[in-house]
Amino acid sequence: MKTSLDCVPCIIRQTLEAARLVSPDHAVHEHVLREILHWVSEIDLNQPPPVMGQRIHRLLREIIGQDDPYRDAKEQQNRMALALLPELRTRIQATDDPLIIASRLAIAGNVIDMGVNGKVTESSIYESVSQALTEPFVGDENEFRSAVAEAQSILYLTDNAGEIAFDRLLIEQLLPARVTVAVRGNPVINDATMTDARTVGLHEIAGIIDNGSDAPGTLFDDCSQEFRRRFSEADLILAKGQGNFETLSDEPNNIFFLFRVKCQVIATHIGQPVGTQVLLRSRANLFKT
Amino acid sequence: MKTSLDCVPCIIRQTLEAARLVSPDHAVHEHVLREILHWVSEIDLNQPPPVMGQRIHRLLREIIGQDDPYRDAKEQQNRMALALLPELRTRIQATDDPLIIASRLAIAGNVIDMGVNGKVTESSIYESVSQALTEPFVGDENEFRSAVAEAQSILYLTDNAGEIAFDRLLIEQLLPARVTVAVRGNPVINDATMTDARTVGLHEIAGIIDNGSDAPGTLFDDCSQEFRRRFSEADLILAKGQGNFETLSDEPNNIFFLFRVKCQVIATHIGQPVGTQVLLRSRANLFKT
Repeated sequence: MKTSLDCVPCIIRQTLEAARLVSPDHAVHEHVLREILHWVSEIDLNQPPPVMGQRIHRLLREIIGQDDPYRDAKEQQNRMALALLPELRTRIQATDDPLIIASRLAIAGNVIDMGVNGKVTESSIYESVSQALTEPFVGDENEFRSAVAEAQSILYLTDNAGEIAFDRLLIEQLLPARVTVAVRGNPVINDATMTDARTVGLHEIAGIIDNGSDAPGTLFDDCSQEFRRRFSEADLILAKGQGNFETLSDEPNNIFFLFRVKCQVIATHIGQPVGTQVLLRSRANLFKT
Repeated sequence: MKTSLDCVPCIIRQTLEAARLVSPDHAVHEHVLREILHWVSEIDLNQPPPVMGQRIHRLLREIIGQDDPYRDAKEQQNRMALALLPELRTRIQATDDPLIIASRLAIAGNVIDMGVNGKVTESSIYESVSQALTEPFVGDENEFRSAVAEAQSILYLTDNAGEIAFDRLLIEQLLPARVTVAVRGNPVINDATMTDARTVGLHEIAGIIDNGSDAPGTLFDDCSQEFRRRFSEADLILAKGQGNFETLSDEPNNIFFLFRVKCQVIATHIGQPVGTQVLLRSRANLFKT
């Protein structure tokens, strides 16, 4: 999807918040803000919003001279989420519908997003888990169930650290031998990379690749050839998070998007309020059916 | 006061809101947003925030080819406020402390601000009036009382249309023969100009001048020589609204600021929460005492 004019004030706010999160230096905050203001003034709005996130965080990493400024935050988020897994796994095993309950929990984990909200608290995660266990998500549940039953190969696109532990619960329900998990190729915000996939033990149950990119979404032109091949060959793609929705919603592949609605632009786009946990089939694919 | 980095995302949001208020044309919204992004990327942050408001609204007026795009909104705000005056005047006359009650109501009127909030509703005005009548403002009430008692000449700097009707209630309590009212020299947002001062009948009770400027505050270098002379000669200056506080808070004159706290930057600056109705003596002046 294209970048809305409403994304512009939001990305400028996110720039300042991100700069303050990764550096205490006011000169760094000002420098990054000015650079991004100038760059956004000339941006091609036909590109999806994660192009802006990629640029901001590349610039921040360059200026502060750190490859992965969110590393400590990601470790903490992985620990918080991993600590919840035994209890959540017991809950899944006790239900009549483990696939759907695990999907809801995977969506609940999408609350762990430092792009939208710099402060991820334990209580926000508990609240999201509680919502996931009590409220059905909005979306195409039966189509999802059929697609999972039929697929020979599944490509699972992750979003954030911490959240990736919740993804493990869903992947365990998908017959993981047919699943390939794809993480970001390089650090960006608190998005999960290979390190996080290993921390939560995904390599023990499924194949893992990285997408070769440092965008907080999936920008094909920026991804590796290997990732693009896997993407085009997969029978079914599960894509976590708003960034993947923003970058892939117009693709013709068989994609299901699992995410929490985090801003008014997306809320308006899909006709669901902010905070909704959704499981949506790709629109492009819907047009074909 | 200087422009905070926190003012930057806010002014970008205000740019888009203002563009949408004055034009239905998406191309205009995008053009204005890009121009302001570029301009703010190079801005001198030692200037006060109203410099940004001035630039945005000059650009908007130029692009849409209208001198006063908020004229209809201002007329409506004046009508809404004028309709309340008889009842409020009766209330003031019935109190033991008409100066302070009239001051509180003048501050209450400061809720009518289309720079911060594009939508000014009747209910928000009623709520603000009700708050003014029941809660004392935060500030230097006794110093204000003494300053008003002692002044030979008072310069009263207005802020918004609609609000200017409430200002009349306070000016009526100030022995208006010693009062000169100063409005903006040219339209900017819904700030009051000479037209609004006449609409609410201020010319019947006090002298009125304009400041020669189209800034949503008081930028000396941009004001007329006549205004600057009046400013330096006045024994006492009452300055309405955040814009006047932002531009005049470091001036050494005997100024009292009357406004509602409308953003977190000002809230932090003065140590009072957003929404507080304040009457503050100028800090520069406080340092002298």
